[in-house]
Amino acid sequence: MRTEPDAGLFITLEGVDGSGKSTQARRLCAALEACVGEGRVVRTFEPGGWEGGAPLRRLLLDGTAQDPRTELLLFLADRSGHLRAVIEPALAASKLVLCERYSDSTLAYQCWGRGLEMDFVLGLLELCGFVRPDLTILLDIDPDEAARRLAERGRADSIEAGGMDFMRRVAEGYRELARRDPDRIITVDASGTEDEVAAFVEAAVCRGRSAAAGWGTGCKT
Amino acid sequence: MRTEPDAGLFITLEGVDGSGKSTQARRLCAALEACVGEGRVVRTFEPGGWEGGAPLRRLLLDGTAQDPRTELLLFLADRSGHLRAVIEPALAASKLVLCERYSDSTLAYQCWGRGLEMDFVLGLLELCGFVRPDLTILLDIDPDEAARRLAERGRADSIEAGGMDFMRRVAEGYRELARRDPDRIITVDASGTEDEVAAFVEAAVCRGRSAAAGWGTGCKT
Repeated sequence: MRTEPDAGLFITLEGVDGSGKSTQARRLCAALEACVGEGRVVRTFEPGGWEGGAPLRRLLLDGTAQDPRTELLLFLADRSGHLRAVIEPALAASKLVLCERYSDSTLAYQCWGRGLEMDFVLGLLELCGFVRPDLTILLDIDPDEAARRLAERGRADSIEAGGMDFMRRVAEGYRELARRDPDRIITVDASGTEDEVAAFVEAAVCRGRSAAAGWGTGCKT
Repeated sequence: MRTEPDAGLFITLEGVDGSGKSTQARRLCAALEACVGEGRVVRTFEPGGWEGGAPLRRLLLDGTAQDPRTELLLFLADRSGHLRAVIEPALAASKLVLCERYSDSTLAYQCWGRGLEMDFVLGLLELCGFVRPDLTILLDIDPDEAARRLAERGRADSIEAGGMDFMRRVAEGYRELARRDPDRIITVDASGTEDEVAAFVEAAVCRGRSAAAGWGTGCKT
């Protein structure tokens, strides 16, 4: 973890589809901007959150890369470009980066979801040497409740693509990752109202490791 | 190397831009079809030689992925999809696969050309576990002569993209790879006429390891 006060801070937001990542990223971004100043927070996402990422995101979401290994390598290429173009420059400029989905998505979806071997995926991630998040917020939700929310928003297709079994495996993967890395991953109950979850997330960020790095100062929670 | 007579045969064609790979692939494909039958030869290429490959090829060639590591991961994703969709099914059906560019391109261009560390690139290639070619024909040509040919064909932009220094480093990379793996890589002098080079290539393929695997039978050379 970067501990210098001016070294930037890298926060990732994780969870299954329908767990509320985008909503909570927007809320957390506003709260953080209120703390540290508007120009000091960069909100981004994977896959596709950089200049070259749009065609990759399309390839990943349209199912062309059905083979799990090809899909994994596309995610890694996307992450590499994203880091180089967006995340690393922001951290180097001492900004706070808030990213929806990152390496924990890769592990939860590709290993637990798609069944790739953990050693293979971890080996690739290690070789790539991607920046480690300082703090990860896991929006934990019952997969059936997440599916109900997706259906309400007319996004039932996201469930059908992988099926409920797939979503349950991914949710279990996230929980296991949080158990393995409790210092970095803070699990937040995402089953409540938007306001309730936003309060939990803000509290988690301000209490979390981020505070130790000098970023928590000024937060209201 | 697959030695069973019915296990397919995987031949790759390598060399710098302007070395004549596409022309010689077409000629060799025709010669091989005359040997083994028209339906038994699959001619393909990298990057982009599969259903999902076209957008990846565009991304790689339009320079969006300027960062060498991102570029490398895109090439590997493309190879993974290509193997799964085209090469592996053809080999499993006991066909002869003739592919323009493959892992030696990755090493020559990304390590010698772009300066990525060999251990990093080899580590990724090893983890990915891609099928190894049975035989590789390296079309060896002086980079200045290759540049002259590209310019004649109105493709001087391919040189300007990387510069002559880049092309010279890639050519040296290919030569070093051939020195390190003489059992698999056969170097062919590509400075002669199209007919001369085609004769060298055919002779190399028929004399090479392919013959040992039962594929050379019936070749005229």
